[in-house]
Amino acid sequence: MKISSSFDGGNISCRRITSPQDIQLEILKDHNSDFYQWFYFRLTGAADQDCQLKIVNAGGAAYTAGWEGYQAAASYDRDDWFRVPTSFDGETLTISHCPQRDSVYYAYFAPYSMERHADLIADCLDDPRVRLSMLGNTLDGQDLDLLEVASGEAQGRKICWLIARQHPGETMAEWWMEGFLDRLLQTHDPIARALLEKAVFYIVPNMNPDGSRRGHLRTNAAGANLNREWDAPTLDRSPEVFHVLNKMKETSVDFLLDVHGDEALPYNFIAGTEGIPSHSQRLENLNLAFQAALRRACPDFQSEKGYGRNRPKSGNLSMAGNAIAETFDCLAMTLEQPFKDSAITPDTRVGWSPERCRKLGAASLDALFSVLDQLR
Amino acid sequence: MKISSSFDGGNISCRRITSPQDIQLEILKDHNSDFYQWFYFRLTGAADQDCQLKIVNAGGAAYTAGWEGYQAAASYDRDDWFRVPTSFDGETLTISHCPQRDSVYYAYFAPYSMERHADLIADCLDDPRVRLSMLGNTLDGQDLDLLEVASGEAQGRKICWLIARQHPGETMAEWWMEGFLDRLLQTHDPIARALLEKAVFYIVPNMNPDGSRRGHLRTNAAGANLNREWDAPTLDRSPEVFHVLNKMKETSVDFLLDVHGDEALPYNFIAGTEGIPSHSQRLENLNLAFQAALRRACPDFQSEKGYGRNRPKSGNLSMAGNAIAETFDCLAMTLEQPFKDSAITPDTRVGWSPERCRKLGAASLDALFSVLDQLR
Amino acid sequence: MKISSSFDGGNISCRRITSPQDIQLEILKDHNSDFYQWFYFRLTGAADQDCQLKIVNAGGAAYTAGWEGYQAAASYDRDDWFRVPTSFDGETLTISHCPQRDSVYYAYFAPYSMERHADLIADCLDDPRVRLSMLGNTLDGQDLDLLEVASGEAQGRKICWLIARQHPGETMAEWWMEGFLDRLLQTHDPIARALLEKAVFYIVPNMNPDGSRRGHLRTNAAGANLNREWDAPTLDRSPEVFHVLNKMKETSVDFLLDVHGDEALPYNFIAGTEGIPSHSQRLENLNLAFQAALRRACPDFQSEKGYGRNRPKSGNLSMAGNAIAETFDCLAMTLEQPFKDSAITPDTRVGWSPERCRKLGAASLDALFSVLDQLR
Amino acid sequence: MKISSSFDGGNISCRRITSPQDIQLEILKDHNSDFYQWFYFRLTGAADQDCQLKIVNAGGAAYTAGWEGYQAAASYDRDDWFRVPTSFDGETLTISHCPQRDSVYYAYFAPYSMERHADLIADCLDDPRVRLSMLGNTLDGQDLDLLEVASGEAQGRKICWLIARQHPGETMAEWWMEGFLDRLLQTHDPIARALLEKAVFYIVPNMNPDGSRRGHLRTNAAGANLNREWDAPTLDRSPEVFHVLNKMKETSVDFLLDVHGDEALPYNFIAGTEGIPSHSQRLENLNLAFQAALRRACPDFQSEKGYGRNRPKSGNLSMAGNAIAETFDCLAMTLEQPFKDSAITPDTRVGWSPERCRKLGAASLDALFSVLDQLR
Repeated sequence: MKISSSFDGGNISCRRITSPQDIQLEILKDHNSDFYQWFYFRLTGAADQDCQLKIVNAGGAAYTAGWEGYQAAASYDRDDWFRVPTSFDGETLTISHCPQRDSVYYAYFAPYSMERHADLIADCLDDPRVRLSMLGNTLDGQDLDLLEVASGEAQGRKICWLIARQHPGETMAEWWMEGFLDRLLQTHDPIARALLEKAVFYIVPNMNPDGSRRGHLRTNAAGANLNREWDAPTLDRSPEVFHVLNKMKETSVDFLLDVHGDEALPYNFIAGTEGIPSHSQRLENLNLAFQAALRRACPDFQSEKGYGRNRPKSGNLSMAGNAIAETFDCLAMTLEQPFKDSAITPDTRVGWSPERCRKLGAASLDALFSVLDQLR
Repeated sequence: MKISSSFDGGNISCRRITSPQDIQLEILKDHNSDFYQWFYFRLTGAADQDCQLKIVNAGGAAYTAGWEGYQAAASYDRDDWFRVPTSFDGETLTISHCPQRDSVYYAYFAPYSMERHADLIADCLDDPRVRLSMLGNTLDGQDLDLLEVASGEAQGRKICWLIARQHPGETMAEWWMEGFLDRLLQTHDPIARALLEKAVFYIVPNMNPDGSRRGHLRTNAAGANLNREWDAPTLDRSPEVFHVLNKMKETSVDFLLDVHGDEALPYNFIAGTEGIPSHSQRLENLNLAFQAALRRACPDFQSEKGYGRNRPKSGNLSMAGNAIAETFDCLAMTLEQPFKDSAITPDTRVGWSPERCRKLGAASLDALFSVLDQLR
Repeated sequence: MKISSSFDGGNISCRRITSPQDIQLEILKDHNSDFYQWFYFRLTGAADQDCQLKIVNAGGAAYTAGWEGYQAAASYDRDDWFRVPTSFDGETLTISHCPQRDSVYYAYFAPYSMERHADLIADCLDDPRVRLSMLGNTLDGQDLDLLEVASGEAQGRKICWLIARQHPGETMAEWWMEGFLDRLLQTHDPIARALLEKAVFYIVPNMNPDGSRRGHLRTNAAGANLNREWDAPTLDRSPEVFHVLNKMKETSVDFLLDVHGDEALPYNFIAGTEGIPSHSQRLENLNLAFQAALRRACPDFQSEKGYGRNRPKSGNLSMAGNAIAETFDCLAMTLEQPFKDSAITPDTRVGWSPERCRKLGAASLDALFSVLDQLR
Repeated sequence: MKISSSFDGGNISCRRITSPQDIQLEILKDHNSDFYQWFYFRLTGAADQDCQLKIVNAGGAAYTAGWEGYQAAASYDRDDWFRVPTSFDGETLTISHCPQRDSVYYAYFAPYSMERHADLIADCLDDPRVRLSMLGNTLDGQDLDLLEVASGEAQGRKICWLIARQHPGETMAEWWMEGFLDRLLQTHDPIARALLEKAVFYIVPNMNPDGSRRGHLRTNAAGANLNREWDAPTLDRSPEVFHVLNKMKETSVDFLLDVHGDEALPYNFIAGTEGIPSHSQRLENLNLAFQAALRRACPDFQSEKGYGRNRPKSGNLSMAGNAIAETFDCLAMTLEQPFKDSAITPDTRVGWSPERCRKLGAASLDALFSVLDQLR
């Protein structure tokens, strides 16, 4: 019986295995940071044995509320990720599972590897309407890919930005991107066609390649939480934000959706920018209209549960949504998806899952289309 | 150079071929009927030759307005159907095409064979939520397949009926069904899941198997136009309607969508039941709400162009929509798709196409979901 | 509970159903012929019921030895065909099966529809090395498709003919063709490439479209057994052979493989042409070499069991293999596959199956390659 | 315009880019080693520009004969790898290419990532006849995966070992494995079935995960050339060989195929074990029989060109083939595939390619089957 995590996005340390019932594990901290919660590892040699996989430092993780009611994701074939019984006693997270095969993977959420990211980029570039912009390097020397999608001249069209996975452990954000991009590029989808007649798209499917590959929860290679860097990003600490923000200043922004995952809340929801100094009724109405349309298009999305509204002028301008809304006076939102399940539309077998992320991504085209004419 | 049409849904008679520029063809009438307009044939041995395929009896077809601005569908691989230059001089429809292969098919619209129908039924039955009801035989001895889709007890759920292809040459209606069924059965589609929590479905993907196989435009094996048989169907003349109507009386109906194609109008639109004796504001509002939702979900659909409203109490009760609305006091509609293209969202390469039919079918789930709670 | 067979290749007549245990069926004779043995029908409405499907006229079928040890093929999804318990008492063939779905198909062997045939032809024509020759019409007006495969000039290359399904109920012959053609056209298959450098191919995947669509066992629309027509085919009675033979005279023949199925013998084997007047040691050696190579490439093939050798000069020259060997002094063979199973390599779940036919077809390239240089 | 290689298997250093015609690159040495020749990088921002990619330290690479007549592999979609004009002047290797897209990858040979490796292992484990043995860890902490394939009891069956990619830059070895495994596990392949009735398989698709991920040419993380470690492997320096050899001693070995690539020779060929002290006519005959069968099954394989025979008793016993043949008195061979093309069966578009590797892997089943009964 053996634990390993030496692969793209892997994160675990095996303290000891005394028996199948006593597999003791620890999650590693993000490099240069105290954040930790993302785990992803492989268990081999345990077929048909009742195993108890114990993450003994779970109590010190970034969001312990995330462990309440949480069920770990598991997969044999690396494609179908299902949930397995998991409990938390305030200190240790215990995954109880009897694997049916010699090799099984466990993760905080279905992983999204950099190889899959590279395939996603390459697939999109098959479409002549898609161009790649190379924004620059990450600190680990990876490419920061920006896709530009336009069916004609940008002139006169709305400028729509979508970014995902500032927090690398929130892999649901890139699964969402797959669904969004797949539909956006379907030649005969009527909503996609209509959008591309009126808008151009700037899309960063993965804002944090280094954290993704390193198996981080929240930070990049320098230990920076990118979604706290939008007020003053630097090449040394947050080149990912630095480059994207510069490009945004070049293109201007009419719409931003920043896609995330939330450890604790079992809901899909949107956090707005009502806390910025220049907030207006116009932005408020756009946000409400977008949410209403997304609820219509996707019953997995809701607006009742969420972070609660920021008090006026209390918004943190180091976060992408607030920073962009304030700078460009545009509709900017943070979309949160659960690590757990969608409590209003639960699926006990898979919880919130890659396929459901993709569906939400696809449905987001409907919502964007419904507000597009009002964006500016 | 050779013309053939001896296959499922084929229809043409070759008068003579004197040269590639003079291929003279005639469409055959529906059996026991004067209707004709559907054609589907194969041309072999004409690779790299400029051909003029002349349908010399086009001027006597059922809907000559259908030939105005019409472009014929062609395919090499029987999967990708593209449009080719076609003109009509009031008498002859001329298809001008230089095929790139030894074998090419031409059709009034992308065909939908009975083998594909059988595969569609079998694929749906892979899903444990789907049952098959055998309604009875057609006059040619084919099965009339009814799919019942329910995720739990029917008790308390809305009863939704969808039927297609009463007119067999309107193959777009069954392509639409593929899109509707495919999405309805996607386990993780949030709209499909929500619908199946509140509704059960009775779906007849092909109301007219005999006309379909025979290559008819509008009638069944007896020459009956099924959408003029709903007041008094008989086993001798219109067993297809007879069996479906009996089953509807057994299940009751809260919603009916009857899917068609229109030869002349280059639009997707809905014909309502405002002409029935018992028409009410309730039904009017439901119809308007459904149409509004379908426009939102699918920009290929519109409500401005169409047949015009029936005068009050002038509705033809032998048609499915009117008959069912009157009998069950429910929302019933006829959905029309173009043989030509969608003029508001044209695609010159393929015109209105199987893939676009499927997208409209999928989007119809959104529209149905938007009115579901109000149906009864 | 209902039986139907009104579809491509269907054949059954339902005498009566008094209970699931007493479903009485009859196979219909080939048109203008006394042959019958092929059956193919659908049973609906029998989910979860123990059924006994009784073919009451089985005792009068063409090859009653074919029923000994025979297990009928069944499928829910029309793709996976498995075997079900079947017994024969000398008069009635009884299929005992409890279907798990509302719709199930039963057949003598996995069917191969004309729609699938048309798709096969169209798929092959995607490859620029393939041309279609239209040989002429069948009596029912269907196309008789000939594929010509050449990677360069025919000049100096061996002329290889392959034909299948003279007997339409022997669908395994066209499944075999799928495997042969699929591999022959694989760009990077080293054997396929090597063959196409030295040979050109003339391939008739279905010699008998009319019998196929009509659900015949052995004859065409005129009731002619095509493999008894090669001495003197006529346009009235056997246009399929007439046209192919004319084309062979035009191209000459260095190799012929005529692919069949055998009702009785549970083996894959080859019948040679040792009975023709001009038989020679050269042809004998080629036949032996081909068989040895096919045994090596495909353990499902064997040479021990078969029809037994013809006595010298006793061969029936109305059969394709003998006629062509005699006319062209070339290697010509009849390949027989079982309706039952391959007794030396049994698979109880599927018996001899489409997938195994395809593998044998693919392996036949190896065998042909091994004798190619010696063919002439 | 930008060069990057910070991904799985990537290897390049960009010295400078002064213009599209002057992109200066260097290959990095294997860690703790002087070997280098493997390169794999991405070029972005160069669409429609004539580029000259100059590997300026090519003259010092491990096998400069490998650059003679070599054409680099390129891909846009990371799936189709084609060859591009490449020249070598004794010092610099220059790739001349005008990419058609914003993003293009170049590599010494089509890469095979560890993610793909993990998917390959997981896919194989879908088959109940396959078990995973975890041999141990690499120095970088990766798993060393061993697949065991058996359709029944090992007792009495031949013990067949296949290993690949001791040299990590020889990615063709793992592409070969895909083809071998895919066919071995095809339920209805008659050769695969026959093999599994008489043999059990121990398969290591990737002997050198660390070198693979690091973008090495020949060595593991410690700089060890694994195919020089079979006489005395150690956990410190060559744990990969240490673990595999131990397992071989446990299972015994009747057959070993060690799959490689050769930088210089444009041929597929086999190197035998004629140089071992205990070489025998029996082993010689087996080797010849295997090669003859592989030539028959795959014209891309040949026996004329190769390394030349070792003199008797001069064989290097630190190499896998020799070590295993000597230890187990069994047929052991090293299979070499070209980095360039197969000169006897060239394909100018793709050269030797993943698809062709797979075909050779599949054909190797035929060759193994032909000698199986004689192995012991």
